[in-house]
Amino acid sequence: MATNTKSPVVDIHTHVYPPSYISLLKSRSEIPYVRSFPPSPSLRLVILPAEDTESTSRGRPVGAEYYDISKKIEFMDTHSIDISVISLANPWLDWVPSSEAAQAAQSINDEVNTECGKYPGRLFAFATLPLSGGKEVIVKEIQRLKSLKYMRGVILGTTGLGRGLDDPELLPIFEALQENKLPIFLHPHYGLPGSVWGERANDYGHVLPLALGFPLETTIAVTRMILAGVFEKVTELEMILAHSGGTLPFLAGRIESCIEHDAHLKAEGKLGKERKTVWDVLKKNIYLDAVIYSEVGLKAAIQASGHDRVMFGTDHPFFPPLEGEGQKWASVETNYVAIKAALGGGSEEEKGALGRNAVRVLNLEV
Amino acid sequence: MATNTKSPVVDIHTHVYPPSYISLLKSRSEIPYVRSFPPSPSLRLVILPAEDTESTSRGRPVGAEYYDISKKIEFMDTHSIDISVISLANPWLDWVPSSEAAQAAQSINDEVNTECGKYPGRLFAFATLPLSGGKEVIVKEIQRLKSLKYMRGVILGTTGLGRGLDDPELLPIFEALQENKLPIFLHPHYGLPGSVWGERANDYGHVLPLALGFPLETTIAVTRMILAGVFEKVTELEMILAHSGGTLPFLAGRIESCIEHDAHLKAEGKLGKERKTVWDVLKKNIYLDAVIYSEVGLKAAIQASGHDRVMFGTDHPFFPPLEGEGQKWASVETNYVAIKAALGGGSEEEKGALGRNAVRVLNLEV
Repeated sequence: MATNTKSPVVDIHTHVYPPSYISLLKSRSEIPYVRSFPPSPSLRLVILPAEDTESTSRGRPVGAEYYDISKKIEFMDTHSIDISVISLANPWLDWVPSSEAAQAAQSINDEVNTECGKYPGRLFAFATLPLSGGKEVIVKEIQRLKSLKYMRGVILGTTGLGRGLDDPELLPIFEALQENKLPIFLHPHYGLPGSVWGERANDYGHVLPLALGFPLETTIAVTRMILAGVFEKVTELEMILAHSGGTLPFLAGRIESCIEHDAHLKAEGKLGKERKTVWDVLKKNIYLDAVIYSEVGLKAAIQASGHDRVMFGTDHPFFPPLEGEGQKWASVETNYVAIKAALGGGSEEEKGALGRNAVRVLNLEV
Repeated sequence: MATNTKSPVVDIHTHVYPPSYISLLKSRSEIPYVRSFPPSPSLRLVILPAEDTESTSRGRPVGAEYYDISKKIEFMDTHSIDISVISLANPWLDWVPSSEAAQAAQSINDEVNTECGKYPGRLFAFATLPLSGGKEVIVKEIQRLKSLKYMRGVILGTTGLGRGLDDPELLPIFEALQENKLPIFLHPHYGLPGSVWGERANDYGHVLPLALGFPLETTIAVTRMILAGVFEKVTELEMILAHSGGTLPFLAGRIESCIEHDAHLKAEGKLGKERKTVWDVLKKNIYLDAVIYSEVGLKAAIQASGHDRVMFGTDHPFFPPLEGEGQKWASVETNYVAIKAALGGGSEEEKGALGRNAVRVLNLEV
């Protein structure tokens, strides 16, 4: 258990695959799916095309930590985490046939909400939207979420309705989220086209799609939203960006410079004073998790968005130790260390990043 | 002219298209090419597939600042730049037929060297390699460079011999560069596959491929080199990364975490103590230009690589003011301001980033 109940540690980036979702995946033979690869009897989860190959690293072992909520609590206790805001892991329900989307989302959201209720005060959640179900179904589920006690936002991938998050068709959905004060937790899944990794990519395990594909995907998605003027149209929309914004804090200056020097945007009258800059959006609409694994990256995130807008996360159950089960996870400790280094051990700012910011932004009753 | 000759300002990221290169481009009808689009008589340069479309922003006007070296000197004087290390702009000679590569590179390198000689002490250059000519031709040109008085390295794109910079076939070329103490200035051109920008990309002018495609391409290229162990094999290879490393400083922590948690790399025995980490490479083999347009990004670059390893640059003649010809360029001033903010006006560290680091690393006699 955490030692300091007055200043809680909150993990806002932590995933689950509830039992019903695992069942869905077991019934599938295409990505995403769960199956064993004989002769080994153990189940493996394959969610990315790049990992769906014959190799020692095909997918990843899927153990109880993925679906047994008591394992989440054990992990939290081991790492002094008081509260977790759990979310369905990628690829969510993006792949569900349109006619099944509404029911699948309701079922998953109800189930996750019930799991949270088993540990009152320790678990909250981001809900999953029935994206393939169409606008009306999606908005209806957003409105239903207020009946679910532990929901504090929604997790969203980068495809939206299939045409990206700069799709104007998404505006009613963003407005519904704004109206219901539900922040979006923006999370990558699709990465980049495989051609960019080159013909030796398999030699590097999963590193390129995970280390680069994920953050670059997030950066592209949110930049397209900014360029489409989403934050000028839905001014109070709140987004928490996974992995400290992908690379947005580092590239914000270049994006701004390219916008201000673009002849086409100027000719279209889009460089007026009413334009919200990337910096404006970073300081008003965007929050960043602190899952960046370095003081260098975290400092940039903090300087770009504000020390009161970054939030601790773990990415559990991904990135477990390759050996030494039961110990503290290096992937978690690295982010603890980065927060301490960037903000000062024991400082108010550190307490904010570790938990108070999340409590304030997500209205987590402690 | 600069006011302080004891601490020069050096621009290491500044491009030219010498007259002979412009002539080559004028003879072409496919990218890259130079032509007019009637009824306008003015010449436009089209180098990216994404900009080869019917729109107001097709390519860019190509004026004397691209090929008249006296315009470079004027620009330098306007912006208090003492020395420029000029390089052929993308896409270099990547597109030249194999049989013509050797001659094209010799001709361009000779021409650029001659241009430098017109302003002794004010101009140095990065040479261009005849990449399509094959290994022997490339190494021969590298060895010939020492006969060219002003050459201080080579500029390189991300394709190498066509299979990326992690291609083992490039090792003899990297070794020849190491042996001749010629750093690589790594510069993007190809960006990312167009599909990642979505169907509304044209609404955003050139912003997405320039602001994101370029730095992401650089990040992917150098990460692939690191994963291939290039810096363990060619230990003294020096690389200057354009745009402050793309996003490498920000993502270094995540890349390291993904490497250390990769089951495949572990199974292959690649996680041993002799492995050079991304941080090791950033502090030994890599230098970063300061073309990042923000204090946030520059501070991350400095913390990742070292204040003595960052170098001022302008990207001239790209990113001119959209109006107000003859004035100081905002794209240049933004980087001056970022360096001052990150390192302190008048500090030794600022003088290093503005010029002394480049003088030391590139051996520029002043």
